[in-house]
Amino acid sequence: MAAALHLGSSSSLGTRQAVFFVPGSRLKHRRELLAGSRTGVSEGSLAGTVTCSVFAGSIAAAALRGRRFAAGSSGTRRSAASDVAAPAAEVKGSAFTLDPPSGTRDFFPEDMRQQRWLFDRFREVAASYGFQEYDAPVLEHEELYKRKAGEEITEQMYNFRDKEGAAVTLRPEMTPSLARMVLQLMRAETGEIAAQLPLKWFAIPQCWRFETTQRGRRREHYQWNMDIVGVAGITAEAELLSAVVSFFESVGITSKDVGIKINSRKVLGAVLNNAGVPAERFAETCVIIDKLDKIGAAAVQKELTEKVGLSADVAQKIVAATGAKTLDEFAELAGVGESDEVKELRKLFELAEDYGYADWLQFDASVVRGLAYYTGVVFEAFDKAGVLRAICGGGRYDKLLELYGSKKEVPCVGFGFGDCVIVELLRERGVQPQLPVTVDFVVAAYNNDMLGKAMSVARRLRKAGKSVDVYPEAAKKVKKAFKYADKVGARKMAFVAPDEWENGLVSIKDLRCPPETPADKKQVNVPLAELDKVDSFFE
Amino acid sequence: MAAALHLGSSSSLGTRQAVFFVPGSRLKHRRELLAGSRTGVSEGSLAGTVTCSVFAGSIAAAALRGRRFAAGSSGTRRSAASDVAAPAAEVKGSAFTLDPPSGTRDFFPEDMRQQRWLFDRFREVAASYGFQEYDAPVLEHEELYKRKAGEEITEQMYNFRDKEGAAVTLRPEMTPSLARMVLQLMRAETGEIAAQLPLKWFAIPQCWRFETTQRGRRREHYQWNMDIVGVAGITAEAELLSAVVSFFESVGITSKDVGIKINSRKVLGAVLNNAGVPAERFAETCVIIDKLDKIGAAAVQKELTEKVGLSADVAQKIVAATGAKTLDEFAELAGVGESDEVKELRKLFELAEDYGYADWLQFDASVVRGLAYYTGVVFEAFDKAGVLRAICGGGRYDKLLELYGSKKEVPCVGFGFGDCVIVELLRERGVQPQLPVTVDFVVAAYNNDMLGKAMSVARRLRKAGKSVDVYPEAAKKVKKAFKYADKVGARKMAFVAPDEWENGLVSIKDLRCPPETPADKKQVNVPLAELDKVDSFFE
Repeated sequence: MAAALHLGSSSSLGTRQAVFFVPGSRLKHRRELLAGSRTGVSEGSLAGTVTCSVFAGSIAAAALRGRRFAAGSSGTRRSAASDVAAPAAEVKGSAFTLDPPSGTRDFFPEDMRQQRWLFDRFREVAASYGFQEYDAPVLEHEELYKRKAGEEITEQMYNFRDKEGAAVTLRPEMTPSLARMVLQLMRAETGEIAAQLPLKWFAIPQCWRFETTQRGRRREHYQWNMDIVGVAGITAEAELLSAVVSFFESVGITSKDVGIKINSRKVLGAVLNNAGVPAERFAETCVIIDKLDKIGAAAVQKELTEKVGLSADVAQKIVAATGAKTLDEFAELAGVGESDEVKELRKLFELAEDYGYADWLQFDASVVRGLAYYTGVVFEAFDKAGVLRAICGGGRYDKLLELYGSKKEVPCVGFGFGDCVIVELLRERGVQPQLPVTVDFVVAAYNNDMLGKAMSVARRLRKAGKSVDVYPEAAKKVKKAFKYADKVGARKMAFVAPDEWENGLVSIKDLRCPPETPADKKQVNVPLAELDKVDSFFE
Repeated sequence: MAAALHLGSSSSLGTRQAVFFVPGSRLKHRRELLAGSRTGVSEGSLAGTVTCSVFAGSIAAAALRGRRFAAGSSGTRRSAASDVAAPAAEVKGSAFTLDPPSGTRDFFPEDMRQQRWLFDRFREVAASYGFQEYDAPVLEHEELYKRKAGEEITEQMYNFRDKEGAAVTLRPEMTPSLARMVLQLMRAETGEIAAQLPLKWFAIPQCWRFETTQRGRRREHYQWNMDIVGVAGITAEAELLSAVVSFFESVGITSKDVGIKINSRKVLGAVLNNAGVPAERFAETCVIIDKLDKIGAAAVQKELTEKVGLSADVAQKIVAATGAKTLDEFAELAGVGESDEVKELRKLFELAEDYGYADWLQFDASVVRGLAYYTGVVFEAFDKAGVLRAICGGGRYDKLLELYGSKKEVPCVGFGFGDCVIVELLRERGVQPQLPVTVDFVVAAYNNDMLGKAMSVARRLRKAGKSVDVYPEAAKKVKKAFKYADKVGARKMAFVAPDEWENGLVSIKDLRCPPETPADKKQVNVPLAELDKVDSFFE
C-alpha cells in the first residue's frame, strides 16, 4: 500500500493549512459544496480584459453557487448522497491529496464535453468572421506584463524564477503574447509588418493569476481572445462587437439577457486633456477611474488629486461625468462637445445600427477597463439581471506595440471572453446544452474465443465511420453488457457469437428505436461483409 | 517610443547570456536556423510514456533539421531571404526580446492549422474508439511525480515553489493526473470506483520538462494520451494498439513506415523472479534496463550488480536475453518457458492477427520503457527508416493507483503520443497535409458610407453559414481589395456599392471558378433578400 503523502496546502477548500485527503475526497467535497460551506469562487479581474468574477457576494449569487456546484464541474452523476464517502479525518492510512493545485480545475469527461461545446462555439464564430487561430506558451516572460501602471493583473502574476534564474510567469492574459508575436513579423529597418494586414487572429488561452488574500478564488480560467491588428478605423470595433453578439446568439442568449456597455478612452482623453492632465499620466488615470465600482467616488477623486495631481474641482468633474447616461450628456458635462472623439464613438453606434445589433449596445461613461494599454473604444458585456460580473471585455490598444519596441504605432483592437461567467449565464437562462455521452456501437463477444472476432467487427464498423466501444470481456451475461451499453450511451449493440459467426453474420440490436419498430428492424443479423453499410439494415 | 526592456536569457537560441532583440528577430532567426547554427531540438524522454527526441545526431537527422525549420513553425511565408532583417546587434534602441521563453513555441496561424489538424485526427480516432476527453491543470503537485525510481522524467521537472510555498510543477506527463482524478471517484470505504468501468479516457495535454545541460532543447510538447482503467485482460492493450494503428492509417502512414515494438514487463518480471530479484526492486531494475540504448550493455550490467545486487552472471544473462529476436527465443534464453506471462503476450499477438493489424507489431525484448510504474505489456512505435526517435509509447500500470492510496490494485493501461516526431515523420514520408488559409467571402464597401451596409451583407452571409471577412476600409481601389481577398484565400468577393445597393443588389464575384465559366456565373448581382441562398446563383 502507499505511503501517506502530503501535497502542500489543500487549496480548493480555500483553507491555508495542510489537509490530508483519502480516495473519495472528491465525493466528500461534494457534500460540503452542496451545503454551501465553500467560499464563492471568483475570477475577479483575472485577465484584465475580462472581469469574470461569478459571485459578487449577493444573495442571488449565493443561491447561484449552490446550483453551480450541484450541476457544475463535480457532475451530477457523483452528487447522490450515497456517493459521499467518509470524512478524511476519520480514515487512517494511505492518505494522498487528490485535489488539483489550489484554484485550478480538473475536467472530468462531463465537464470536458461542456468545455468543448463552448470552445467549439468560440471557434465557429471566429471562423465565420474570417479569424485565424494562434497560440503562445502558457509560460511567458514576466517582463512582458510589467507595464507598471498599478494594474491588478500585474500585481497578481503567477510568476517565479526558473532554475536558470529567468523571471517567468504563467500568463495573466494573452494580449502581450499577441503583441510579441506580431513584432516578430516586423522588419526592424522599416517597422513594416511582413504579413498581409489586417491580422485577424483568435485564441483560447488558459490564463493564470496568483493572489493569496481571499480564499477559494480560482487561479486559472480560459479566455477566448479575438484581435484585429492594423485597422485604425472604427470598423474593427464594429466587427468585434458583432462577433460577440453572434456568439451570444449562437448559444441562445438575447439582448434581453445581455447588454454591451461602450465607452471611449479617447473621449475621456479629450476631457483629461482639457483638464490639463499630461498625456503620460493618461493610462494611470484610467486605471484609477476604473476602480470607481470598487473603492467609490470619494476614493477615486482622492487618488486623482493626490497621485495624478488634478485639482479637486477637476477630479470631481471627471467623476461626475462618468455618471452621464448618454454620450451627448457626457460630452456636455465633460465639455468635449462635438470633438472628433465623440463623433467617432457616434459612428460606432451608427455602424451597429446598419449591422443590426444596435439593441445590444449602450453608452456608459463609467466603463474604462482596468488595463493600462487601452487607448480608444472600451467595452464590456454584462448580464442585465445584474447578478453576474462582466461577461467579456475589450477595447482598442494602439500604443502597445510601441511599448514593446515597434518604431511606429500599430492600431490594435481586441477582446477577452472568459469561460466561467458565460456558463453561469447559460445555466441562469436555462439554455445550457445537455451533452450526454454517446457512442454508435458497443460490440460484445459471446465468449473469450470470440474477443478477437469482436475486435475485427469493431474495426470494420470504425472504418465505416462509426464510433465503437468494445466490451472488454466475454459477455455471457448479456444483461451486464446491456447495462454497460446503456451507461456509455450506445445507440446499437453488436453481439459476436459463434453460431452467427460461422454463417458470416453479426447480430445487431437497435437500443434506441421506438417501441412500435417492427421486430425485424429492432434486431438484425448483418453479414460481416456488409458492415460498411450497417445503417441500411435498420432503415 | 518604448524603453529597452530585457527579458532574461535569450533561450530559443540556446545561449545562456543575455541577448537583446529588436523587432524582426523572428525573421533574423530564420536565417540562422536555415544555416543550421541551432543545436538540434530534442524532446528526449520528456514525458516518459513518449520518448520523442527528433534529432538523434545522425547525418540524416541533421539533414532533416534544415527542412524542419524551413517548413516548420516559422512558416514558409516568412522564410524568403528578402524577409530577413538586420542583425540585432547592428540596431540601436527600443530593443525587446520577442522570443517565447526558452524551449517553448509560438503557434502562428499556419502552425496552428497544422496543430489543429493533428489534434483533430487524435480526437477523431479517440472518438471512434469510444473514448471520452478529460483534462487536468498544466500545473500539478510536484509530489505526484516523486516516485523516486531514478526516472529521467522526475529529475527534469519544471518545478518551483509558489508564493504560498506549495511545491508545484508544470506537469511532465499526464498519467499521474489521470490517476489522481480516478481516485477522486473512489469510495474510501470500499475502494470501489463510483463510475461505470472501464473508463476509456483521452486527453491532449501540454507536458513540460526543465533541463539545463543541453542547448536549444525543447521544454514543452503536446501529448495525446489514451488510457483504459479497469480492464485486467489483454484486450485493453489490443484496443489501444489498434487505436494507434488507426491513427497512423488516418494520416497516410503504413506498416512499411512504422512498426510497434512489444514487450511485457511481466515476462521480464518472471525472469527477475527466477533470478531472485525481490519484487520491490522490480521497477528500479526496469528503469536500469531501459538505459541499454543510452549507456550500453556493460554499464547496465554494472548497475544491475551494484545497485540491484544481482550476480554478474544473472545480470549478463538478463542483458543477453533482451537481444532475443522472438518471444520464443526470449522465453528460452531467459528460462521462463511457457509461463502465464509468455502466454498472455502471445495472446496479444493473436488478437492483433484477428483484428487485422498484426503486420504492425514485432516482439522486442529490449523495450522496457523508462517509467517506473509499468507492470505489464510495454510498447513503442518507431519509424522503420531508423531516423527518428520513438513516435509513441505506453503500457500497463496496474499498481500506480495503489501508490496514490487506492486500497486495491486498479488495472490500467495507456499510451502517450507526442506532437513532434509524428510531424517529422509525415514530412519525411511526404504526407504532411497542405492547409492553406481560406474564407468563403471577402465583403468590401465601395466607399465609407457603404461600410455599415457591407457589414450588414456580411451578417446575412454569416447567418447563411458562410465565413466572411470584411475588408476594413473603403475599397475604391478595387485592386487592393482583390489582392487582400487573394491573400486570405477568399472563394468569393462581394462588393457593396451605391448603385447596386439602391436596387437591393450586391455584386458577387467568384474568385475560384475555372476560366471556361460563363460570364454570368463569374459575377452575379445577387438580391440582398436572397443572400441566404447565395450559392444557388453560381450553380
